[in-house]
Amino acid sequence: MAVPLDVEGLVGQALQHSPRAVAKLISLVEHAHPQLREVARALVPHTGRAQLVGLTGPPGVGKSTATSMLISELRAQDKRVGVLAIDPSSPFSGGALLGDRVRMAEHATDSGVFIRSMATRGHLGGLSWATPQAVRVLDAAGFDVVLIETVGVGQSEVDVVRLADTTVVLLAPGMGDGIQAAKAGVLEIADVFVVNKADRDGADATVRELKQMIAMSRRELRGHYWRQPVVRTVAARGEGAAEVAGVLAEHRGWLDSHGELYRRRATRAGGEIEAIALHDLRAELGDLHGGDLLAELADQVVRGSLDPYAAADRLTRSLRG
Amino acid sequence: MAVPLDVEGLVGQALQHSPRAVAKLISLVEHAHPQLREVARALVPHTGRAQLVGLTGPPGVGKSTATSMLISELRAQDKRVGVLAIDPSSPFSGGALLGDRVRMAEHATDSGVFIRSMATRGHLGGLSWATPQAVRVLDAAGFDVVLIETVGVGQSEVDVVRLADTTVVLLAPGMGDGIQAAKAGVLEIADVFVVNKADRDGADATVRELKQMIAMSRRELRGHYWRQPVVRTVAARGEGAAEVAGVLAEHRGWLDSHGELYRRRATRAGGEIEAIALHDLRAELGDLHGGDLLAELADQVVRGSLDPYAAADRLTRSLRG
Repeated sequence: MAVPLDVEGLVGQALQHSPRAVAKLISLVEHAHPQLREVARALVPHTGRAQLVGLTGPPGVGKSTATSMLISELRAQDKRVGVLAIDPSSPFSGGALLGDRVRMAEHATDSGVFIRSMATRGHLGGLSWATPQAVRVLDAAGFDVVLIETVGVGQSEVDVVRLADTTVVLLAPGMGDGIQAAKAGVLEIADVFVVNKADRDGADATVRELKQMIAMSRRELRGHYWRQPVVRTVAARGEGAAEVAGVLAEHRGWLDSHGELYRRRATRAGGEIEAIALHDLRAELGDLHGGDLLAELADQVVRGSLDPYAAADRLTRSLRG
Repeated sequence: MAVPLDVEGLVGQALQHSPRAVAKLISLVEHAHPQLREVARALVPHTGRAQLVGLTGPPGVGKSTATSMLISELRAQDKRVGVLAIDPSSPFSGGALLGDRVRMAEHATDSGVFIRSMATRGHLGGLSWATPQAVRVLDAAGFDVVLIETVGVGQSEVDVVRLADTTVVLLAPGMGDGIQAAKAGVLEIADVFVVNKADRDGADATVRELKQMIAMSRRELRGHYWRQPVVRTVAARGEGAAEVAGVLAEHRGWLDSHGELYRRRATRAGGEIEAIALHDLRAELGDLHGGDLLAELADQVVRGSLDPYAAADRLTRSLRG
């Protein structure tokens, strides 16, 4: 039998900035450790201070390089930075370990930086399950900024960056029709646009196109407007880092002053509570009648004698006893 | 107020192969029409006959062309073919309408072919919600083969092809390290490998690499082995079509003879029932205390006075009354 963890001790060490304790807590979260509830209970009073920044964009725009640049800039401002690099876990994309190591190289010896890759395959609801818990660990551990980075290849990958207070969408010149095709979705999720590789041909056109899109959309939040800024960077040379950090701070201030920060966080907390409740209910559904009820209903659906909605009704009725 | 649909009439027309009725039923499913349950009840006694084939692969391997080739081959064998082209709905990928139209052009006048693109954004559980219902429509409407096609960019996109009895993974030469990196995930989902663009340099190497991976994996199903075949195609010229159709028929026979077809379908039906039950429970959770309970709990989590697990417990307790 496993020895129970000293959760209180571990959380205490994380609050004191121990990277080992932070890493261990995130691992607990990822593997749904039996003491997960105890961990969440110990962490939650210490959360709410960090700025949560999501960073996404299509493959090849330089997300790793931009992340590394942003870390350097925030460190120069003496801010502690936690990074969660989320792996979309397609069977065709392989692991995220390489990116992790490459980024680690530059910041590995800096105790004010914590970088962690998370694979999300097999979790209920994809990314929605473990990621908010990992964010909570970093928030409680006193990181001033928590970056959540993922490649924008599918809906669930994009949803994860919306765990953040501020979402940065990274683009690059020469995506051509890509921006046109994508504009509705991208406009919806972005608080800040960064055009990376801005020294390349086509950068002016990309920036112009984005600004036209933004001008046409005019997002309104209860009478307050946030016009999404477009920042140019050449992340490989560190150009534009201060501007990105500047608009992030500006957006945080805007969120705060309009009550929008609270609204975003409450919406996310509601989603998280709901996801946990559904996870627990799902486990109960599978256990009904000693685990046999679902199998019996499935058999009837395959044989064509019961439709899946009627089967689901029987299942939820049985849950209520 | 909307006039109630004549569900029985519509399903009757679909059973008589009316493409208009089939299209209408899939639209009902996609938009979660109030009479959805009635539709499912009318369809389910007529299902179970079609062979469900999933087709996936990374971007650029020629999935549309391969699908079109396979349609032509199956039509030459006088089989009716239904196609669901699933759009992963990334904000960066735009819509799937173009692919639909391109494919439609060749088979548009053939009453034995029905092609439909489905966007899946915003559905609970991503693709898991509407797709099985749409498959059920096509199955009941007497299509001999139902192809479910999607690009393999994220986990949920790949999960959808596993709604099929037989999953085809399409690859192309020159993916280089891609196959190596991807091998674990790809081996797990594929029943059949197709190496398209087999007239290109590197085709031999890709086929050899795949065969080595397969030889090392040896999947066992209760003492029975299915060694995944590797078929070469040049879909743009129709080469290899008969071979692909042949291995699909062979795999169907193998599934049948080992009871595996039933097991796969029962597992899927169980997942579908569970998804519907969870969808209904989720709606109930949001309605508790006149819709206020979840918001109150979320507020406490944001303020750090309650952890999300304890909040979820209160929510599920309240569900039970």
